Amino acid sequence: MAQIRLALAQLNVTVGDIAGNADAILRWAQHAADRGAHVVAFPEMALTGYPVEDLALRTSFVDASRAAMDDLAAKLAAAGLGNLTVICGYLDRDPEGYDRLGRPKGSPQNAAAIVHGGRVVARAVKHHLPNYGVFDEYRYFVPGDTLQVVTVHGIDIAVVICEDLWQEGGPVRATRAAGAGLLLAINASPYERTKDDERLKLVTRRAREAMCPLAYVNMVGGQDELVFDGDSIVVDESGTVVTRAPQFSEGLLTVDLDLAGTTRGADEYAGIRIERTVISDRPLPPYQPARSGIAPRLDEEAEIYTAIVTGLRDYVEKNGHRSVVVGLSGGIDSALTATIACDALGPENVYGVSNPSKYSSEHSKVDAAELAERTGLNFRVIPIEDIKEAFLRQLPLTGVADENLQARIRGMIWMSIANQEGHLVLASGNKSELAVGYSTIYGDAVGAYAPLKDVPKTWVWRLARWRNQRARELGETPPIPERSITKEPSAELRPGQRDTDSLPPYEVLDDVLDDYVEQDASAADLVAAGFDPDLVERVIRMVDAAEFKRRQYPPGPKITFKAFGRDRRLPLTNRWRESVTDHQPSPAPARAASPGEGPRG
Amino acid sequence: MAQIRLALAQLNVTVGDIAGNADAILRWAQHAADRGAHVVAFPEMALTGYPVEDLALRTSFVDASRAAMDDLAAKLAAAGLGNLTVICGYLDRDPEGYDRLGRPKGSPQNAAAIVHGGRVVARAVKHHLPNYGVFDEYRYFVPGDTLQVVTVHGIDIAVVICEDLWQEGGPVRATRAAGAGLLLAINASPYERTKDDERLKLVTRRAREAMCPLAYVNMVGGQDELVFDGDSIVVDESGTVVTRAPQFSEGLLTVDLDLAGTTRGADEYAGIRIERTVISDRPLPPYQPARSGIAPRLDEEAEIYTAIVTGLRDYVEKNGHRSVVVGLSGGIDSALTATIACDALGPENVYGVSNPSKYSSEHSKVDAAELAERTGLNFRVIPIEDIKEAFLRQLPLTGVADENLQARIRGMIWMSIANQEGHLVLASGNKSELAVGYSTIYGDAVGAYAPLKDVPKTWVWRLARWRNQRARELGETPPIPERSITKEPSAELRPGQRDTDSLPPYEVLDDVLDDYVEQDASAADLVAAGFDPDLVERVIRMVDAAEFKRRQYPPGPKITFKAFGRDRRLPLTNRWRESVTDHQPSPAPARAASPGEGPRG
Repeated sequence: MAQIRLALAQLNVTVGDIAGNADAILRWAQHAADRGAHVVAFPEMALTGYPVEDLALRTSFVDASRAAMDDLAAKLAAAGLGNLTVICGYLDRDPEGYDRLGRPKGSPQNAAAIVHGGRVVARAVKHHLPNYGVFDEYRYFVPGDTLQVVTVHGIDIAVVICEDLWQEGGPVRATRAAGAGLLLAINASPYERTKDDERLKLVTRRAREAMCPLAYVNMVGGQDELVFDGDSIVVDESGTVVTRAPQFSEGLLTVDLDLAGTTRGADEYAGIRIERTVISDRPLPPYQPARSGIAPRLDEEAEIYTAIVTGLRDYVEKNGHRSVVVGLSGGIDSALTATIACDALGPENVYGVSNPSKYSSEHSKVDAAELAERTGLNFRVIPIEDIKEAFLRQLPLTGVADENLQARIRGMIWMSIANQEGHLVLASGNKSELAVGYSTIYGDAVGAYAPLKDVPKTWVWRLARWRNQRARELGETPPIPERSITKEPSAELRPGQRDTDSLPPYEVLDDVLDDYVEQDASAADLVAAGFDPDLVERVIRMVDAAEFKRRQYPPGPKITFKAFGRDRRLPLTNRWRESVTDHQPSPAPARAASPGEGPRG
Repeated sequence: MAQIRLALAQLNVTVGDIAGNADAILRWAQHAADRGAHVVAFPEMALTGYPVEDLALRTSFVDASRAAMDDLAAKLAAAGLGNLTVICGYLDRDPEGYDRLGRPKGSPQNAAAIVHGGRVVARAVKHHLPNYGVFDEYRYFVPGDTLQVVTVHGIDIAVVICEDLWQEGGPVRATRAAGAGLLLAINASPYERTKDDERLKLVTRRAREAMCPLAYVNMVGGQDELVFDGDSIVVDESGTVVTRAPQFSEGLLTVDLDLAGTTRGADEYAGIRIERTVISDRPLPPYQPARSGIAPRLDEEAEIYTAIVTGLRDYVEKNGHRSVVVGLSGGIDSALTATIACDALGPENVYGVSNPSKYSSEHSKVDAAELAERTGLNFRVIPIEDIKEAFLRQLPLTGVADENLQARIRGMIWMSIANQEGHLVLASGNKSELAVGYSTIYGDAVGAYAPLKDVPKTWVWRLARWRNQRARELGETPPIPERSITKEPSAELRPGQRDTDSLPPYEVLDDVLDDYVEQDASAADLVAAGFDPDLVERVIRMVDAAEFKRRQYPPGPKITFKAFGRDRRLPLTNRWRESVTDHQPSPAPARAASPGEGPRG
């Protein structure tokens, strides 16, 4: 057995900011050394950020990543950290790469550098390239074909990258044959609901298969629609948790491990070549290990809420902004959006706007003002009636066109404030509305980011109640006016309008959507599950016709299995309309691509 | 040798309209039989349309495709076509499929059914799954692993699907070993500029490798951002063209071939199992072959213009619409967009709107009206000044916010007309503007479709001149006012504004964009090629910061190698800014995600 102090750096990096990320890596490596670590591991693609998308296909970007990693190695040594072994994800290229139709140009690879003594002494390359859900790695990377085992202080550390852990076969399968004392996985593994439970099950299983402890380091923070939840873990060879990092917060997890000493295992297993790099084969003199903690898990509402706050904060800040505009209708969606924005950016950076029309109820105006009062956000009232009248003098409108006009005047006001004063606009729509197209494109759908995009309406209420309850527990003022939570939803675009004029009750709608969208249940499945056939056909028709609006909606933090966008994408021209009785599509023409269609324009 | 009459059905189908597509296949099969064909081949995924995107992952959709193919086989027999061999693309599933993380759920396959005597007698499955550019097939399909050879009237026909022809190895490589008399490839191969030349080179090479004639049948028509150009071809074993179909038009290409009779070739080659199905091994009695023609190629401008017209027409019609709204500024982009719309839908279905402001020049108003006069489209004038004043009374604006407001009032007017009267809005932006973010989101960027989205500004002029010249050649009135072509571009959002206030001259800009966007050249490459370093950095900064706007822009027909969207996609939060001097990113904060940023909001 041999001892080692391992540090896992759960970092929040920014895509493309190679210089800034390198600085952060250097700083955290110093911190790890200060805490006596012998090895420090950073997440997948920590140097470039993840996901880099088409930047991977730019030769200059791959060159920059490679050069920055060499430079980082030199800087580590210059800072007196040459003896620290640093394992860090970056973008590299296949040294034997070649160009061929359909193969990523320049042969980019998702790699880990093993740095010691001022240089990159070895590299591990991701073997399994996920190409489902939010991932497109088959498009961007060339896979690796070896398992890298690096010996540090007499311990054989097998290094793998993210999906390598999730898939059967590949380098993880070779770990036991390699006789590794530790399996180290570096990750950029995005949050989704209950992902932490899945992750724990996975690392437990893989540790048992590898017959050695497993250390798992993950990213934190938001990047476009992804939110990384951290949750770095170390388990022992039986899968028992040794230490675990908090969710969603940046930090260094340090752990003392007593591991099997170096062995000469196989050089190849099941088609995977095992490559060995010895940094030091002498075990450390025995020392007193420090104790490591296990961070408590967030409960379900706290976890989802924190994911959304994290996603919003990073989206705004990493794009060089500080402040946001939110239209406040007095309803629950905008109230929760504004509250989340206050938690993410501070109320002084949130600019609420109330835009009453002649159809706005008294309580809408009061509740919007009360939300501002409770949260302390900046508030102003800009009525839309005069603008609307000026517009209608030029172009008389009726029905849905008239309703859309009101929503679009509001959107134009928010965008004008944002352009004039330098904020970003937040869209307040939720996942249920978005699923069925219940929004006005270029109206309430304007904005740079949509915090509730992946939150079903029933969960909007649940999160609002939870947020108020948490405030009460902390002795603070609950931010959301009670009436915004309890009142019946209405777009207030015509007299007496209610959401249920166009939609089923949200409790029912959310159940149908969960089955149809998340589970890919068929119309027949839904009827078999007890839903009303007419309701099923109606909802499916709305969902399939709303693809255009969904694609044009602002990005938002992904929190469920299937968020609209990359991991659920229908054709725009799509005449497929499932019937509850058979598998024949209805002959009725689809009208999916019109921005003016749907229950609201 | 043995004779056969082969028909290639170059069809325009609609994604999801399985019933409608099946009817069309039946109709064209009847037509092929009427013309004496023994075998008729339909394009890849002709039954479902292509690309089906996430529909492939719905069990109910795969079931529907399979059931419809069986039903089609029965209907063909019932119609007296049981002796005709029909080869047709559809969505099937791997009979030995299994579910695993990262594998498409339900094991969908991109397949060809070989139909005879009222049933599906064999199937071929696509082997190479493209996952680059506009393709995501690795996400949607499970690959096949055999080469299907079907013997019809004593001729061995090897059947492959699209990408199988483009990639080395796989079933095409096994064709010669299989001793096939004909290699038949069914395709859904999207248009891009000069694609027909690439295609001809490819089929020539493959025919020589396979040592037998090659028949290539392709789709026509628009589907979302793709346009299929048809261009079905038959070459002999030396690669010489025997017959070739017109570009962009639906039709049946019929050819008499005299081919090597059936042989018993290998059962396996280079890991590909060769599967054989005998429909009839008796050669036909000799008959007098008919002659087949070779359709002339369109010249470059005609080809691009026709692709755009085709894409627009199908996008509108397949979505159940007939008419469009176009804002007419008097400038070249809107003039060309409206002209294309008139050619696609007829001028009676095109609604032009002029929205002058106090900054609009006299010639802008005159030129917009003259375009309407020349083309015969519906025309109205709605000034924006009163609406703008009503707005500014509520919310005073200056600078870019004020410029954006004008563009947004116009967008709101077009959307209102579309909603009120039931049209789709067309956006008039070109690829150069879109590349650098020179547009107002929710303003001139509103719309269901953007015909010029992939057309660089210098090509906008070129197409406009070509269209007018074609009119003159035909003795018709040139649709586009000469001054719209010759005047200096201006957004006219402030007094005396010119595009060159914010942008380099378009001739220079388009050259830089071609290198940076299409060729992935680095900043250093561009400087080495002779561009001014400041200009290069400025253009790159604009391009990298405009990703948000590009993603929110309406879809449009893809005509070049790299269209914005699926096949060029940058992160939204992206601090990578290439410098001309080295590979280090600049430390300046990116401001990519703000809808209010860029040379125009």
